[in-house]
Amino acid sequence: MRFSVRECIPQNQVRRMTDAFRATDEFAAQFDSLLVWRRDVRRFKTDLLEPGLLEELIDRACLAPSVGNAQPWRFVSVESPDHRNAVAESFERENAEAAKLYKDEQAMLYAELKLAGLKEAPVHLAVFSDTETPLGSGLGQQTMPETLVYSTVCAIHTLWLAARTRGVGVGWVSILDPRVITRTLNVPGNWQFVGYLCLGYAIENHDDPELVRHGWQERIDRSKVLFRR
Amino acid sequence: MRFSVRECIPQNQVRRMTDAFRATDEFAAQFDSLLVWRRDVRRFKTDLLEPGLLEELIDRACLAPSVGNAQPWRFVSVESPDHRNAVAESFERENAEAAKLYKDEQAMLYAELKLAGLKEAPVHLAVFSDTETPLGSGLGQQTMPETLVYSTVCAIHTLWLAARTRGVGVGWVSILDPRVITRTLNVPGNWQFVGYLCLGYAIENHDDPELVRHGWQERIDRSKVLFRR
Repeated sequence: MRFSVRECIPQNQVRRMTDAFRATDEFAAQFDSLLVWRRDVRRFKTDLLEPGLLEELIDRACLAPSVGNAQPWRFVSVESPDHRNAVAESFERENAEAAKLYKDEQAMLYAELKLAGLKEAPVHLAVFSDTETPLGSGLGQQTMPETLVYSTVCAIHTLWLAARTRGVGVGWVSILDPRVITRTLNVPGNWQFVGYLCLGYAIENHDDPELVRHGWQERIDRSKVLFRR
Repeated sequence: MRFSVRECIPQNQVRRMTDAFRATDEFAAQFDSLLVWRRDVRRFKTDLLEPGLLEELIDRACLAPSVGNAQPWRFVSVESPDHRNAVAESFERENAEAAKLYKDEQAMLYAELKLAGLKEAPVHLAVFSDTETPLGSGLGQQTMPETLVYSTVCAIHTLWLAARTRGVGVGWVSILDPRVITRTLNVPGNWQFVGYLCLGYAIENHDDPELVRHGWQERIDRSKVLFRR
């Protein structure tokens, strides 16, 4: 899988030259804006994705880093209405359960949050990690076997950003019972459920998280996350 | 944290218009090439990063998605030579141990692989996840508490890509004893070690993984990772 890109960046915009990929200031700024406008989307149009676009995004996700090049990511496009209903029911059940954790004002706020777009999103992707893949021959996993599932998370995030460059929004639904998803989709026993993604075109676009906008949780700044030793 | 980007994309290159962020075909192609040329870098120049660049990258990493907006990522810049030596020793020890897993030709190949650039990389970042952060009030974590550490993985991957847009290479070292890292850096007990990153300018640039190039593990294609249900 190769992309020829050397010629596509104007010479006068080279920020730092490497032998091959040349990132311009303009590209770095656009990449930053991609991060800002990425968002976890929960309000989808029902418009379908163009034919082939899902496959294009999966190909990009496969460019994610993986420990020992183990490529443990497995994507299941959930298409059957019965399967989708089972997932939506799991969400409703677990969300009702989670709501009980909160009291008073926080409970009211929680009830008003829109936490998934399962009904509207045209594409549902259940993402699993193959915990027993022979690929990579265990390289890099001996002291930290959890890096295998971390690789799958990197693939999800790669897909998320690639989708946004193509105008497609992604929402990651975690309020689900992993056992229900695994059983419903009848996947191999060595596949660990990692995340359930809704994909589609967003109704609204924002540069701040839904949970900030609705007063659930503010962002913290760098002083709270960067330390020196 | 806002970026004004609406004006920076030529109107004639709009791929799909949204209300705000406009991704052009050219940007999508450049993003794809960023994925292709990202790489796990292990061969670094010793040149320092420009002042402020690490902080710029941390700010971008903080734009990663996180469950309930919990922002559990904690970055420790490892600067003391004693600490760096302790990390390098852990790598040498665990790598020697891991090498014993392989036999014959595979053992010879493993011994020849360069799996870290700890000695040359000017910046070392140990990344942890705060397992007990009150941020986000547990939203989205009830059935899948592992999504908290997945958020930190997304921040690592965001930093990785942002670094590459600025010409900086990143290598993720997982052949380490997490207990040694945690003890050496004396971090709070509720911080879980996620990954150790080397940052710096790459000596070589490649569009294929080191482990492909050196015959350890080939890439697999989409037919092996995309399923329908």
